[in-house]
Amino acid sequence: MKLIDGKQIAATILEEITEEVAKLGDQKPAVTFVRVGEDPASVSYVRNKERAAAKTGIISDLKVFPESISQQELIQEIQALNNNPNVHGILVQAPLPNHIDEGTIFRTVLPEKDVDGFHTVNIGKLCQEDASGSVACTPAGVIELLKRSDITTEGKHVVVLGRSLIVGKPVSLLFLHKGAFGNATVTVCHSRTQNIASIVKQADIVVAAIGRAHFVTVDMLKPGAVVIDVGINRIEDSSRKSGYRLVGDVDFEAAKDIVSAITPVPGGVGPMTVAMLMKNTLRAFQATRG
Amino acid sequence: MKLIDGKQIAATILEEITEEVAKLGDQKPAVTFVRVGEDPASVSYVRNKERAAAKTGIISDLKVFPESISQQELIQEIQALNNNPNVHGILVQAPLPNHIDEGTIFRTVLPEKDVDGFHTVNIGKLCQEDASGSVACTPAGVIELLKRSDITTEGKHVVVLGRSLIVGKPVSLLFLHKGAFGNATVTVCHSRTQNIASIVKQADIVVAAIGRAHFVTVDMLKPGAVVIDVGINRIEDSSRKSGYRLVGDVDFEAAKDIVSAITPVPGGVGPMTVAMLMKNTLRAFQATRG
Repeated sequence: MKLIDGKQIAATILEEITEEVAKLGDQKPAVTFVRVGEDPASVSYVRNKERAAAKTGIISDLKVFPESISQQELIQEIQALNNNPNVHGILVQAPLPNHIDEGTIFRTVLPEKDVDGFHTVNIGKLCQEDASGSVACTPAGVIELLKRSDITTEGKHVVVLGRSLIVGKPVSLLFLHKGAFGNATVTVCHSRTQNIASIVKQADIVVAAIGRAHFVTVDMLKPGAVVIDVGINRIEDSSRKSGYRLVGDVDFEAAKDIVSAITPVPGGVGPMTVAMLMKNTLRAFQATRG
Repeated sequence: MKLIDGKQIAATILEEITEEVAKLGDQKPAVTFVRVGEDPASVSYVRNKERAAAKTGIISDLKVFPESISQQELIQEIQALNNNPNVHGILVQAPLPNHIDEGTIFRTVLPEKDVDGFHTVNIGKLCQEDASGSVACTPAGVIELLKRSDITTEGKHVVVLGRSLIVGKPVSLLFLHKGAFGNATVTVCHSRTQNIASIVKQADIVVAAIGRAHFVTVDMLKPGAVVIDVGINRIEDSSRKSGYRLVGDVDFEAAKDIVSAITPVPGGVGPMTVAMLMKNTLRAFQATRG
């Protein structure tokens, strides 16, 4: 069994980006993180992204707005960033407060600065296999993990669990792209799927992004399958000081004995999301250079 | 076995549109068809669309340009239509000559006037389940056939054959939407798929859009399956004056005895594509009214 070490692969990608950034002239890529409120998970996610930027030489700026900010004010703040030529990438950390429509905010970011890949135009380009767009970071990270582990997908049956806009759908579209890390037969399952176990059992590659702890049990997996676990779920664990630990959507401990390759949680897809964000920022910067 | 009569269903939809158009004031929806060159299939497709428009009271205009038109000139012609407030819908008939990039032309049409649903923004909206966009006509027609035949898709396994941008991918995304005519488990197969027969055999609903005559044979189908045949293929037929006849991607004659419902070719999906185009034109017009 091969453990797909996302932490290690992400570190390698960040090193590559660091080298590229070092080769640039005086002006460096710059990303602005926008956070609304003090949600502890958001604080921690943004901090990880700031650290990754610092490591690579990408300039980052953090704008924090109070939970009380109106949608219109937030739109104006984003428009100011859109108009600022020294900002190449903009990331608005989700979730936003309930009185603000996330879709509207994500679409306010200029497609060229949308390093998250959530803008309608970038999703459309992903579907159209138009490489000029930004690809959403987690789906891009899933494909990159396979590439760097020499696991081709051509002709293989990929079963994606989850149909979210930020993971399930875009990753499914990527697996349908032409090329050795596309060209897969893709099945998308979700909460309404019947006989989910018998479908997952057919998968050469399982991408679990359904957000339920240990949803995929070992009996659902075909021996020799490759498992990419996107889930990050908290479960109680009285042995930890925090009282909980993070687990994926797959029962890793049981699965690891029958699969050919698997990502751990944490340390699998998570670090890749941050690395792909830096890659998108570098690309957005390079695009402004022409 | 239920024959899903696309011709009849399309006629009903056109009647509904006729009633709606009649209720409008003096200004009627107007669509402009753009054809480049004299490809006989394109001539015939556009003529069908003109007839449907005439039937419903939608104003149509046909602009024909010579095969020698440059991409830049064609772009300018489309921009003039974009800027014309009396044109609500624009349809550029594919295929275009080789020296013109179809993607570029489709993206030149304003998303609001893109009644074909091929613009990047409209594809992105389809993916994001944003109902404000135009849905590509053939995929929309497939869903509408099921709706009007009371065949729900929730929880069913839909196998789509083909991953094209104009049918396979958008129809797959529609089946993943939330709702009784979405919420399906979707598998997308294509030329690189292995064991395609065993995958199709699992399908409750098969959508064949692979462009190969009689590719789906009866042994590939699960008894009781629903079959939507998008293919339109010419095969030799010496008994016809023309020397050929049109058949679908499915071996209809053999399949009809074991399926629960099936579309014929011709007379299935084809007429629906035209009907949905008229629906998109009416919607584009209504959107300008606010």
